[in-house]
Amino acid sequence: MSTSPFSRTTNIAFIGLGNMGSPMALNLLRHYPNLAVFDLVPEALAKLAAEGARAASSAMDAVKDADVVISMLPAGKHVKALYLGDDQQPGLVSVLKPNCLVIDSSTIDAASAQAVGKGLVAAGMQFIDAPVSGGVGGATAGTLTFIVGGDEKCYQAALPILQSMGKNIFHAGAVGAGQIAKICNNMLLSVLMVGTAEALQLAVDNGLDPKTMSDIMLQSSGRNWTLELYNPCPDVMPNVPSSKGYQGGFMVDLMKKDLGLAMDTAIQSQSSTPMGSLTHSLFSMHSLQGNGRLDFSSIFKLFSKTKS
Amino acid sequence: MSTSPFSRTTNIAFIGLGNMGSPMALNLLRHYPNLAVFDLVPEALAKLAAEGARAASSAMDAVKDADVVISMLPAGKHVKALYLGDDQQPGLVSVLKPNCLVIDSSTIDAASAQAVGKGLVAAGMQFIDAPVSGGVGGATAGTLTFIVGGDEKCYQAALPILQSMGKNIFHAGAVGAGQIAKICNNMLLSVLMVGTAEALQLAVDNGLDPKTMSDIMLQSSGRNWTLELYNPCPDVMPNVPSSKGYQGGFMVDLMKKDLGLAMDTAIQSQSSTPMGSLTHSLFSMHSLQGNGRLDFSSIFKLFSKTKS
Amino acid sequence: MSTSPFSRTTNIAFIGLGNMGSPMALNLLRHYPNLAVFDLVPEALAKLAAEGARAASSAMDAVKDADVVISMLPAGKHVKALYLGDDQQPGLVSVLKPNCLVIDSSTIDAASAQAVGKGLVAAGMQFIDAPVSGGVGGATAGTLTFIVGGDEKCYQAALPILQSMGKNIFHAGAVGAGQIAKICNNMLLSVLMVGTAEALQLAVDNGLDPKTMSDIMLQSSGRNWTLELYNPCPDVMPNVPSSKGYQGGFMVDLMKKDLGLAMDTAIQSQSSTPMGSLTHSLFSMHSLQGNGRLDFSSIFKLFSKTKS
Amino acid sequence: MSTSPFSRTTNIAFIGLGNMGSPMALNLLRHYPNLAVFDLVPEALAKLAAEGARAASSAMDAVKDADVVISMLPAGKHVKALYLGDDQQPGLVSVLKPNCLVIDSSTIDAASAQAVGKGLVAAGMQFIDAPVSGGVGGATAGTLTFIVGGDEKCYQAALPILQSMGKNIFHAGAVGAGQIAKICNNMLLSVLMVGTAEALQLAVDNGLDPKTMSDIMLQSSGRNWTLELYNPCPDVMPNVPSSKGYQGGFMVDLMKKDLGLAMDTAIQSQSSTPMGSLTHSLFSMHSLQGNGRLDFSSIFKLFSKTKS
Repeated sequence: MSTSPFSRTTNIAFIGLGNMGSPMALNLLRHYPNLAVFDLVPEALAKLAAEGARAASSAMDAVKDADVVISMLPAGKHVKALYLGDDQQPGLVSVLKPNCLVIDSSTIDAASAQAVGKGLVAAGMQFIDAPVSGGVGGATAGTLTFIVGGDEKCYQAALPILQSMGKNIFHAGAVGAGQIAKICNNMLLSVLMVGTAEALQLAVDNGLDPKTMSDIMLQSSGRNWTLELYNPCPDVMPNVPSSKGYQGGFMVDLMKKDLGLAMDTAIQSQSSTPMGSLTHSLFSMHSLQGNGRLDFSSIFKLFSKTKS
Repeated sequence: MSTSPFSRTTNIAFIGLGNMGSPMALNLLRHYPNLAVFDLVPEALAKLAAEGARAASSAMDAVKDADVVISMLPAGKHVKALYLGDDQQPGLVSVLKPNCLVIDSSTIDAASAQAVGKGLVAAGMQFIDAPVSGGVGGATAGTLTFIVGGDEKCYQAALPILQSMGKNIFHAGAVGAGQIAKICNNMLLSVLMVGTAEALQLAVDNGLDPKTMSDIMLQSSGRNWTLELYNPCPDVMPNVPSSKGYQGGFMVDLMKKDLGLAMDTAIQSQSSTPMGSLTHSLFSMHSLQGNGRLDFSSIFKLFSKTKS
Repeated sequence: MSTSPFSRTTNIAFIGLGNMGSPMALNLLRHYPNLAVFDLVPEALAKLAAEGARAASSAMDAVKDADVVISMLPAGKHVKALYLGDDQQPGLVSVLKPNCLVIDSSTIDAASAQAVGKGLVAAGMQFIDAPVSGGVGGATAGTLTFIVGGDEKCYQAALPILQSMGKNIFHAGAVGAGQIAKICNNMLLSVLMVGTAEALQLAVDNGLDPKTMSDIMLQSSGRNWTLELYNPCPDVMPNVPSSKGYQGGFMVDLMKKDLGLAMDTAIQSQSSTPMGSLTHSLFSMHSLQGNGRLDFSSIFKLFSKTKS
Repeated sequence: MSTSPFSRTTNIAFIGLGNMGSPMALNLLRHYPNLAVFDLVPEALAKLAAEGARAASSAMDAVKDADVVISMLPAGKHVKALYLGDDQQPGLVSVLKPNCLVIDSSTIDAASAQAVGKGLVAAGMQFIDAPVSGGVGGATAGTLTFIVGGDEKCYQAALPILQSMGKNIFHAGAVGAGQIAKICNNMLLSVLMVGTAEALQLAVDNGLDPKTMSDIMLQSSGRNWTLELYNPCPDVMPNVPSSKGYQGGFMVDLMKKDLGLAMDTAIQSQSSTPMGSLTHSLFSMHSLQGNGRLDFSSIFKLFSKTKS
């Protein structure tokens, strides 16, 4: 039993129709037909319009009647500029309806999320940060994971809307907590990946078969998500990036970006993160060597002998 | 259908009745009553004798009629001295029956395991290394994990015997592979533990609840064995060492020992193990600060503010 | 032969009379008597006034007739607010004389320095960043090191003024380069200190005398500034913090701050800094354990056995 | 005033005429004409014989009348086999003259050095370990650094002999201390090199000139041996390996070997060496990528963008 005030006829605006935003908006549209969309790229707009969404002429236009606004943008500065304005433009904060629920699904620094939330709430709106994981595949299939920061009432209100685009919806805490939880998870993921890669290679270097070693660790205390679903050693698992030349999946440069956000956060909170700091350096090094667009499991290559 | 040549009446010798060896021998005795045991500590011997084992007067005496010999000793030098001899004593190699199957369950360096295996095989015996995990609890309950290195025939022969003491029995590869697989797994475990500890603390430092953060990561790509069964943050899980003052469990100094073996192995095979090297340094540092006898999940304390 | 347009009678304003700023302003005053000063703390103002400086009633008041403005503030946000203004106050940029030379000696992030420089230059002023090293001792003795970012003309103009407060004046490059050079140097310093500490302790743990080991490395390829002037092992050198209970010197928390700036910079420029990242984590850990106010050479304690 | 019992006519044997041993023996021969030499490679022997040394037919033959024996071999196992014997051959310990002074200049693990020393002393001989630094260049020029472990009397006795091959002779402590001091120094050197490389690249990535940055750090607290004599950034210094395609100098694989010895030592003494462990992993990684035969300052390449 949902406690959301929203229904199928709620007016929603979706801003940012990139690789992730576009399939998210398509899934949303199936459940919420009164959807206005905006993006600076005309083709992205046209695609959604062809499916029945209203193609707005600007972000301001998109949010005109919106009860809910969802955004999916690259970085904190874009989100701040959109809602709070900057040198170039006024922010949406000056035109949004009172009580409008703003859902930002961008992956950005928590401080920016909190600044936007504070600005919107001061002006009478509501805000949650709701970054996603699951990639383009999950966005298309409507199986994204959302990690939400915001108060309980906003979380409950947003729930059915998020469920139209995703499968697992978590409530991490107050505004900003969605971002924090996402980058903590991804920092840990990077540690699992590098640690698994070097343990597998150490076994291989000492004559063990990587599949046998993976099976043993999967049933032992080395078990982790990368061994279950995303083995970094080529040809241990079918249909994962490591068995397809490290194509597809989650790019090294996106992991590097998330680790940069984790490091920023750790500096701010004066936390010590030796393992995450090391993976940040290793993924940065790996990217410098020209691997930035490969899947992040390609970090395995750092530990294996270069074939000449 | 086992292909083991051994039966309930097989003569077995068990050498090394310490914290682990003693409960292992007790479980073994229930299935193999013709058991001779030896240890330098009379009390340990007496305990097994009271249950019906033959208390031998020396290792030489213990193996007199043995078809199978099992050993559980602290380090590589003890295992080498026992089987191959040293300045002080001749090795068992000179007295073992032809074809006798030697099972060494000590956690030692792979090179020592291979040296012992080579020496025994040259003299007409058979050898597997079969280090265990699961701790004193698993040894007592008969639920240990054995990771075996040796040829397929020896592995099959040993299987029912190992099953009398353990639950999961893995065949990792040739002689020495059991040791390699164990230390690779434990190196990865150390990485999971430290990575999970610092990710949880980073979340806590930024206002999140550690239980909520753990739940989210358990269902996301940060999932790993420590979050499933062994959360390092106090009071997130009941009945784990972190919720009992880090008492019990797997001691910091034992993890440090296993990481030392992993580092030795990596030096020999010229492997690069940045994450394992870092955890080795961190567990060593943690031990230097007086925490060597706490459970290894106490590494969490490195990242949390000291209470004054 | 200086090419500076300034003379003994130039009007100078100095803003920020903290631990560092106060002795710097005192030295400046000896060479430039027409000095106006400002700080929010009345006592700090009074002290300079007693020596003959004009105690201004505000920053605005201090810079009224200034040809040169020098600032020494805690963080980037303070410097930006001072010159460019914020929600609370207009910036000095609106009142400074055309061509006024602004010298910011705060240690802040390079991006903030560049933003301030850009804003001031756009309004017709001149700007250099000139962070210092040498601590309160160097500030008092007038022997600070200044590392300057800005164009050659500004650097030459500022030179005699900086020489009244310091001994070594370096020109690192364009605006912001002073900050970059300082944090690169300090990141390297942190690496020298931790590396020297662990090498000395490894020698001690293996029976060597730390003084002998230090002497050997000083004359070998391990030579570095910390061995020359700042040995971290107690009682190897007289009159250094390690021989005085790690009191005085350069606090752990200040090193942690500088390393945080270095990490910020590396994230922005997508650089890989594994060693600096590790020292950042180790100094953060050391601070969490209650050592934040000790001299940074106390990192040696991480590697030595805790006395109980 | 030397307290050495040896003179120009002392009988000396030199065993191991490789890249280092050959030029060392040549220098020795100029001061000590009664020199017998041995190596398994006939060409190496012939070269010394042509200069007047006696080419022995075996190690046993070489040491026949020797008052002093010097050895220069690749690893601990060779040194142990030479002096103490192994499966293949008896050790020199059975034939050396009483009181003969054995000087081992190989770079090996301290435990092997101590084992050899113990064996020789028990048989009535004297022993010092005296590993060198300075490379083939230093060996040829007679300017090597020797770091000696052994008692004061042996050190004094060896001094004039070592001075015939080297310039700086240090006495580090008891037997084994020479090896310990050397690997501590080299571990620190690796830290200086990697730390300097990443600090320079961070500066370059942020627009600074590497020469300017090097000059500033040389005069600041970042000063260290690599900036003084061995800058890792190409074209900052003339005539160093980095300005010659990283050819010549001290090979990555030799640094990796020394770091492996340092890690072994740290595992034995239960020391925590996070920085040295990280450089060990980075040099291993660098070697895996095919750079093992480049000069060790080529680690700089890990941090700079790959040119495509």
